[in-house]
Amino acid sequence: MPELRKDPVTGRWVIISTDRARRPTDFIRTHVTPKTKGVCPFCPGQEAATPPEILSYRENGSNRWNLRVIPNKFPALRVEGVLDREGEGLYDRMTGIGAHEVIIESPEHKVALSELPEKRVEDLFWAFRDRILDLKRDTRLRYVLLFKNHGEAAGASLEHSHSQLIALPVVPIQVLEEIEGGKRYYAFKERCVFCDIVRQESADGARVVLETDEIVVVSPYAPRFPFETWILPRVHSSHFETAHPSLIQALAWAVRSTIRKLEKALEYPPYNFLIHTSPIQEPSLAHYHWHVEIIPRLTRVAGFEWGAGFYINPTPPEESAQFLRNAGL
Amino acid sequence: MPELRKDPVTGRWVIISTDRARRPTDFIRTHVTPKTKGVCPFCPGQEAATPPEILSYRENGSNRWNLRVIPNKFPALRVEGVLDREGEGLYDRMTGIGAHEVIIESPEHKVALSELPEKRVEDLFWAFRDRILDLKRDTRLRYVLLFKNHGEAAGASLEHSHSQLIALPVVPIQVLEEIEGGKRYYAFKERCVFCDIVRQESADGARVVLETDEIVVVSPYAPRFPFETWILPRVHSSHFETAHPSLIQALAWAVRSTIRKLEKALEYPPYNFLIHTSPIQEPSLAHYHWHVEIIPRLTRVAGFEWGAGFYINPTPPEESAQFLRNAGL
Repeated sequence: MPELRKDPVTGRWVIISTDRARRPTDFIRTHVTPKTKGVCPFCPGQEAATPPEILSYRENGSNRWNLRVIPNKFPALRVEGVLDREGEGLYDRMTGIGAHEVIIESPEHKVALSELPEKRVEDLFWAFRDRILDLKRDTRLRYVLLFKNHGEAAGASLEHSHSQLIALPVVPIQVLEEIEGGKRYYAFKERCVFCDIVRQESADGARVVLETDEIVVVSPYAPRFPFETWILPRVHSSHFETAHPSLIQALAWAVRSTIRKLEKALEYPPYNFLIHTSPIQEPSLAHYHWHVEIIPRLTRVAGFEWGAGFYINPTPPEESAQFLRNAGL
Repeated sequence: MPELRKDPVTGRWVIISTDRARRPTDFIRTHVTPKTKGVCPFCPGQEAATPPEILSYRENGSNRWNLRVIPNKFPALRVEGVLDREGEGLYDRMTGIGAHEVIIESPEHKVALSELPEKRVEDLFWAFRDRILDLKRDTRLRYVLLFKNHGEAAGASLEHSHSQLIALPVVPIQVLEEIEGGKRYYAFKERCVFCDIVRQESADGARVVLETDEIVVVSPYAPRFPFETWILPRVHSSHFETAHPSLIQALAWAVRSTIRKLEKALEYPPYNFLIHTSPIQEPSLAHYHWHVEIIPRLTRVAGFEWGAGFYINPTPPEESAQFLRNAGL
């Protein structure tokens, strides 16, 4: 019997459709395999082919970088200019002020994020944090999207492993709605809904993929997509950029381990991850809790899913969690 | 200079990024071309291979059907059973009561919807209407999604031209938010936002693809996707199923013409369309206006678009409207 489940944060209903494909082997398969051709602008020696560097991490005293942050060569938004808001009849628009940056995760062309040493994955999250702390000083900017597209099917246009950052003068609507959902729950319960999720999942165990003293990784109760996976810090905090060093370390380990498990269970699928965090100019919020969502791209999204925000998911999260628990690191 | 535009209904901001690919020839190309192999369960003579028929349209006195409605063989939801709602700690779920039907648009295996005669495209919209009027008598059902996935990349699993219907015991969250957006505008202006869109677009003309006395087809002001196209009735009405015969006729012509233009401009792309209409048990609403949204599948959707509901669109709607105006019918 199919089941409808409600996401406790947004109120979004999802069909868990148990009559359809559900095992890892039932999905369309696009494997991400690095292939080299031509000159890669993200490789060492090609630094002049990219816009000037914003940040880099190097070994002590070495000339060799481990991670570089550069502006996107084809930015969706630019920092230069004045933030102008204007109407056009009933419509509203503003100039595209913001930032669009690329984080090159490694000098090695062929090495995927999940294959880097733990310490180097940690560097990615330090870079995210450092960039937010810098960008939030520009008070025109209200939100920073931190994400990774891995594999062409997930939207990556270059194969050299990288993540991205988009800083916006507005807060994206689904972020607002997630925060509003947290606020409604808090108004009713006086507790953070994500803290409650962490407690219930950790006690129940059926949807837990892995956990440590600092982090819980779960298949969420009402996932939109098969093998959608959330990585939640145990301790409440609304803003990613306030994470202390031991949590960044635990997060890097959890993200790396989760991706490795997805890669084992699903044979190197394309995937996206996105850090869900609070608007950068907001103070600390009792009702929102930053976390990471990872979505392997296993199915094609149908029209009504776009249009109605209503999803049919063939894999119950209890099953995807079990597959991922059983997959090695 | 890139621009941020706000959808006047939902409040969703979209980046119109003019530095990137924008012309029809710049997009990834998956052409939908019918190919025949094996036995098609939707073809005449194979009626026994599908679940029993719910509805069919036949020529006067003929045995030959022009259109058939059947239950989906792998339904996401079922009508049988009791609508049970229950909690699971902090979570909520309900049994998957509903309906999932397939509308086979034509007996001919190889003919696409846009190639059918106008009268037969009209039949599809009559079938949508007839099915809503039947399903709304089941008061457990609150919303009916009416949509078409054309081409594998748009989610179609069988090539014989068909549309689908999913009846739900809940209202999808984006539908609710669209209606709420209309309500906020109405509270402020005492006018329907879609009526205002129709008036402004028709007067301005820059984003109009085609128009008749009854219908306006536009590239919306803040489209999420390149060549996203909306088909709006001029006269206010909240529920699709109340449309009178001349409007159904005008709608069928407009949908057929719009798809033919998209196919000419974009070389037979995969596409989705979805009827945006009011919850079936609601009375007539002054603040919501049913319409059709067509989205050709030209780009891969990136992670932050999923996660944040924030879109980057490389094609300004003024340009896509011009390309479509210039494409023949």
